[in-house]
Amino acid sequence: MKDRQKYSSSDLELVERESRSINRNIKITVDYIGRDFKGFQRQKNKPTVQGELEKALSILLRESIRVTGASRTDTGVNARGQIVNFRTKSDMSAERIMKSLNGLLPGGIAVTAVEDASPEFHARKSAAWREYEYLIWNRPYPEIFRGGYVTRIDRPLDTGLMKKAAESVVGEHDFSAFCVASSAVKGCVRNVTAVALDEPEPGLISLTIRADGFVHRMVRSLMGTLIDIGLGKLEPDTIKRMLESRDRKLAGRTAPAHGLTLTKIGY
Amino acid sequence: MKDRQKYSSSDLELVERESRSINRNIKITVDYIGRDFKGFQRQKNKPTVQGELEKALSILLRESIRVTGASRTDTGVNARGQIVNFRTKSDMSAERIMKSLNGLLPGGIAVTAVEDASPEFHARKSAAWREYEYLIWNRPYPEIFRGGYVTRIDRPLDTGLMKKAAESVVGEHDFSAFCVASSAVKGCVRNVTAVALDEPEPGLISLTIRADGFVHRMVRSLMGTLIDIGLGKLEPDTIKRMLESRDRKLAGRTAPAHGLTLTKIGY
Repeated sequence: MKDRQKYSSSDLELVERESRSINRNIKITVDYIGRDFKGFQRQKNKPTVQGELEKALSILLRESIRVTGASRTDTGVNARGQIVNFRTKSDMSAERIMKSLNGLLPGGIAVTAVEDASPEFHARKSAAWREYEYLIWNRPYPEIFRGGYVTRIDRPLDTGLMKKAAESVVGEHDFSAFCVASSAVKGCVRNVTAVALDEPEPGLISLTIRADGFVHRMVRSLMGTLIDIGLGKLEPDTIKRMLESRDRKLAGRTAPAHGLTLTKIGY
Repeated sequence: MKDRQKYSSSDLELVERESRSINRNIKITVDYIGRDFKGFQRQKNKPTVQGELEKALSILLRESIRVTGASRTDTGVNARGQIVNFRTKSDMSAERIMKSLNGLLPGGIAVTAVEDASPEFHARKSAAWREYEYLIWNRPYPEIFRGGYVTRIDRPLDTGLMKKAAESVVGEHDFSAFCVASSAVKGCVRNVTAVALDEPEPGLISLTIRADGFVHRMVRSLMGTLIDIGLGKLEPDTIKRMLESRDRKLAGRTAPAHGLTLTKIGY
């Protein structure tokens, strides 16, 4: 109270406004190419998306920044619209953060939006659902322009069989049979709210899947099994049987990481 | 006539059938990534599209193969659907040529179709028109997935002005002002039959141009001048004045090669 008396009322207002503004919660939207990084999560002496973002933000904002991502994508998995948040005391404008950040980051990451979020926003915990897309190139020659983001299957796939099999994952299920490394903490029950297997152009097959969460390598296990169903190597009801038995031994191959892209986070 | 008497009539038929089949004219369709090659045309000790195709075909068909391309794209320019033809004595099936060729070629080229053509077909001389596409990414952050095939312009472009200016090239004109190295043989008169400047998705600007032929760096000169018009650095009527005056000094920048793709050849 003694100190307060040194300031006029307008000075005090200014101090209060500044102290309100110095604890910002910032939400950023990020695209990245999976092959350039050892996954999202920070690792010592390895290039990761989290590591690169924290390094660039700490340089830019001149304080030690720690970021949280909505989805901790594996090595090799791409993202279009990953959501990340971090706290900062900086008053730099969102526009300037975006511009400067893209200048500091390596070529395989781009920040496509920066905005102030409410104090309670948490990129991972606030997320209601995630959506992934898996792309397959099913023609007898390579796709050179998108080659890094599609998995090529030379032999013709039966998309009718695949479509029907994919639809059997919708709903709440125990995905133990689709999980490469099980998480004891959360178990393997997840709620898949939407699945679509389409052919947006001849020979390009896309699997889009939305769920409240995904067990480790769930989409790649699902896609690999769908590929083997489409090739006639596995029975069309394999996915249904995997869900019922929780037996991973029934699964087909695990599809490669580079064909997988995180596409949307829902809040 | 003496030799003939050694063979039965069915033997002769076989010989004749073989001699008919040993001079095939084969047409192939090729995609390639410009940055991987020093252009289309063969050069000693440099990787070129023609060089790689001839090397792979000569190994595959066990004879010295020379190919002709419809359009001799510059260093860095991409192609989707370049047309190439060559003569061979081989009786290998078109399907097997395609499959084996893609196995022998480097990752930046893909052969997407192989078929037998009529004896008089010539990839370049028979072509009635060529179509190119130039892509610009006009958002304040990088496009990392298609980054190698789009030219990024950070500041907002006035596409209305660019569209109107682009349309002034339709028709038969002397394109001297758009020509970096003039060809004394053919002159610079070309007939542009179609031009479209579109925004297929927000922030992605495409210029599509079809003509009977293109002078050296014509599309890149046109696009560079359109960019400067879109930024307000050049007057909207610059292209019209360039066509009238044939004065290259009026031109804007030459847009970079990697944003340009050969997209179609018409026969």
